[in-house]
Amino acid sequence: MLFQVQITIQIPYGADRAEVEKLSAAEIEQVKQLQRDGKWLHIWRVAGKWANTSILDLESGDELHHLLSSLPLFPYMKVDVIPLCHHPASL
Amino acid sequence: MLFQVQITIQIPYGADRAEVEKLSAAEIEQVKQLQRDGKWLHIWRVAGKWANTSILDLESGDELHHLLSSLPLFPYMKVDVIPLCHHPASL
Amino acid sequence: MLFQVQITIQIPYGADRAEVEKLSAAEIEQVKQLQRDGKWLHIWRVAGKWANTSILDLESGDELHHLLSSLPLFPYMKVDVIPLCHHPASL
Amino acid sequence: MLFQVQITIQIPYGADRAEVEKLSAAEIEQVKQLQRDGKWLHIWRVAGKWANTSILDLESGDELHHLLSSLPLFPYMKVDVIPLCHHPASL
Amino acid sequence: MLFQVQITIQIPYGADRAEVEKLSAAEIEQVKQLQRDGKWLHIWRVAGKWANTSILDLESGDELHHLLSSLPLFPYMKVDVIPLCHHPASL
Amino acid sequence: MLFQVQITIQIPYGADRAEVEKLSAAEIEQVKQLQRDGKWLHIWRVAGKWANTSILDLESGDELHHLLSSLPLFPYMKVDVIPLCHHPASL
Amino acid sequence: MLFQVQITIQIPYGADRAEVEKLSAAEIEQVKQLQRDGKWLHIWRVAGKWANTSILDLESGDELHHLLSSLPLFPYMKVDVIPLCHHPASL
Amino acid sequence: MLFQVQITIQIPYGADRAEVEKLSAAEIEQVKQLQRDGKWLHIWRVAGKWANTSILDLESGDELHHLLSSLPLFPYMKVDVIPLCHHPASL
Amino acid sequence: MLFQVQITIQIPYGADRAEVEKLSAAEIEQVKQLQRDGKWLHIWRVAGKWANTSILDLESGDELHHLLSSLPLFPYMKVDVIPLCHHPASL
Amino acid sequence: MLFQVQITIQIPYGADRAEVEKLSAAEIEQVKQLQRDGKWLHIWRVAGKWANTSILDLESGDELHHLLSSLPLFPYMKVDVIPLCHHPASL
Repeated sequence: MLFQVQITIQIPYGADRAEVEKLSAAEIEQVKQLQRDGKWLHIWRVAGKWANTSILDLESGDELHHLLSSLPLFPYMKVDVIPLCHHPASL
Repeated sequence: MLFQVQITIQIPYGADRAEVEKLSAAEIEQVKQLQRDGKWLHIWRVAGKWANTSILDLESGDELHHLLSSLPLFPYMKVDVIPLCHHPASL
Repeated sequence: MLFQVQITIQIPYGADRAEVEKLSAAEIEQVKQLQRDGKWLHIWRVAGKWANTSILDLESGDELHHLLSSLPLFPYMKVDVIPLCHHPASL
Repeated sequence: MLFQVQITIQIPYGADRAEVEKLSAAEIEQVKQLQRDGKWLHIWRVAGKWANTSILDLESGDELHHLLSSLPLFPYMKVDVIPLCHHPASL
Repeated sequence: MLFQVQITIQIPYGADRAEVEKLSAAEIEQVKQLQRDGKWLHIWRVAGKWANTSILDLESGDELHHLLSSLPLFPYMKVDVIPLCHHPASL
Repeated sequence: MLFQVQITIQIPYGADRAEVEKLSAAEIEQVKQLQRDGKWLHIWRVAGKWANTSILDLESGDELHHLLSSLPLFPYMKVDVIPLCHHPASL
Repeated sequence: MLFQVQITIQIPYGADRAEVEKLSAAEIEQVKQLQRDGKWLHIWRVAGKWANTSILDLESGDELHHLLSSLPLFPYMKVDVIPLCHHPASL
Repeated sequence: MLFQVQITIQIPYGADRAEVEKLSAAEIEQVKQLQRDGKWLHIWRVAGKWANTSILDLESGDELHHLLSSLPLFPYMKVDVIPLCHHPASL
Repeated sequence: MLFQVQITIQIPYGADRAEVEKLSAAEIEQVKQLQRDGKWLHIWRVAGKWANTSILDLESGDELHHLLSSLPLFPYMKVDVIPLCHHPASL
Repeated sequence: MLFQVQITIQIPYGADRAEVEKLSAAEIEQVKQLQRDGKWLHIWRVAGKWANTSILDLESGDELHHLLSSLPLFPYMKVDVIPLCHHPASL
């Protein structure tokens, strides 16, 4: 099923910037692989913020939690999840 | 450029239901045509609400306003617009 | 998959109370049948409000939307949906 | 009586991760025991967050406070409590 | 157990003022009787608003819901319930 | 006059727990004395939180500020004050 | 004692404008008299809104409630009350 | 001095649409005249909403209130005012 | 023109209390001088909080910003500004 | 297209003030250059806060994100973006 996921990254003051950049680079690779796997359908940057809007196609809430909590920047994420479904106006 | 548009329909008590359904049917056709025109990229229903999440690809804020305010249900819409851009993790 | 659904009923001033009670009675029967079908696992009244907390076990967001929008009081509902999953502390 | 308890864990930056994991493991055992005692009826993970939705069946607000404030992660919890009761649609 | 109940009365424009005053008078008598029964311990007016702060001592959330939903002005109430318990500083 | 005071204690991460417990013990004694003085009428714990609901009977806002800002845990308090008055349903 | 009172007037659509203006004119006279009585110390219009910020000097919350609920536009008011006291920087 | 004014128009259900359009047309002329007078510096439509962001250059809050409350659609406006000043990065 | 300014002081955990008290004492002197200058008309303590409500009479937003940002505790202030004007009920 | 950007600077306690001032000075130069380039049309200080309201004229959300995330104080910014368009009352 489809989930809209709004993710905002919040790096606390004093965090090790090099470590954060390493985690961020690893996260980008992981999200790219999830796209290739057909699970992470879309990811867009929210203009002006360290945040993204994503659409995921997964089996269940269990798979969603496993996938998100495995992301390297998960401890720094504010996550909002909106369950989606087919819209009658969609071609 | 890309815009995320969150639309919630709020029909006031006492509205003419037949009229609302007619407007809703016309809106579905209009949104389908905008998809064929390559302007309205995606539309998903928010599960459990008369609401949708949409992604539009337009020239400008002027085109966005013209397009949304031409929708039949516009007077009953709560609209939130988030400007998007390319995400480095997007394939 | 599991969804937590928080439903608040908001009856506008001037609504036909007899009609609302008829819809409410029909809704109770429909929710009972959905429990017998194994789809609506739990429903509790929020003490002091015309509101409930429910847990549903469904295939997808599509089934959730179909089920909720078929309820007789849907036009008067404020609905919040939270996707759930297994908790490691659950027996 | 029944209480719905929404718990979100907020670990401050700089906390000792090993200590937090030890507290978390102890908490899981404590919540399992409370389930066996018939006091903690349900616990579900909120998908995508370090948070849970729980239903407890207790004598009183005093027992609720004693039970929650004894949990190892209580100092890191944001807690919302909603008193529940029987719903006429519940089988 | 003890519940703090914050009640705000919201009378919609166009309501029959004579009817509202009749309901209000009946409600005052009902709340006085509940005080005599030892169930409604305290009621204070919030200065400057049609609202009150109350403390009730009841068996359960079921009794709380039954009691509040039986009040004549219940359809016009916004209700917030906070479960209370003994404080170690209380004599 | 009567004031409803809602107090939530927020201890920052890294605070000296022994010092906080010493302040907390001193605060309990101070609140007990204010009850004996007839100034602090009621104090209840909010179930599930380090928070309380209190009713104070004081001369003025000046006395309220002096009293609250003299409490040992005042630097860690989030305070909301609601001025109360007599309710016509109160016996 | 001193109270800061923030008042916003909300006239529902369909209200009798002539009646509202009559109530408004009566309210202005009543507030002027309360200023002459030394009870309503200051009243300022919030620029751009049908709203005001006022400072009142009264005996108690009871007097505050009696005074505000006697104002002709009280049924259309949103009222927020903040108890004030002497500031050490005040001359 | 400079004021940022955010205006949202909220037309209640049932309002006379022809009357609203007449008021809207009159408002456009009035705002144009205020631009010619050098008082209303900028006005932009918020894309997707019946709302605008404006910058006004006026003598005082009194002039601001007089000007806004004279607009034909004032009874239907939600207004937020932010006082501005010179920014050191402004050329 | 007149401005209502609501100021809340937020001292972060770990701040040097002696330094804060020195800044606070200097601020009190500065505010007293501004009162003598006829710029800071009123200052009241919000009862129960480290916060104040003030009324200032200044030339412009520029003077307001210069004045507030020169206060010793400015880095620790949450500031809300409301532009005021003459009220027709004011004597 | 036009964007309204509301920026608030939040400097965490303990930040190196000299470093922050250096970043702030560099930011002022960068914003001045963007004004000369015709991209940053307006910048005003919000009176009483370390915040600004700005109007930018850019190609797309991509250019907006690139521009804002290149500002020296970006890690300390809270950013809100509102897409604008032509208003029919604008001369």
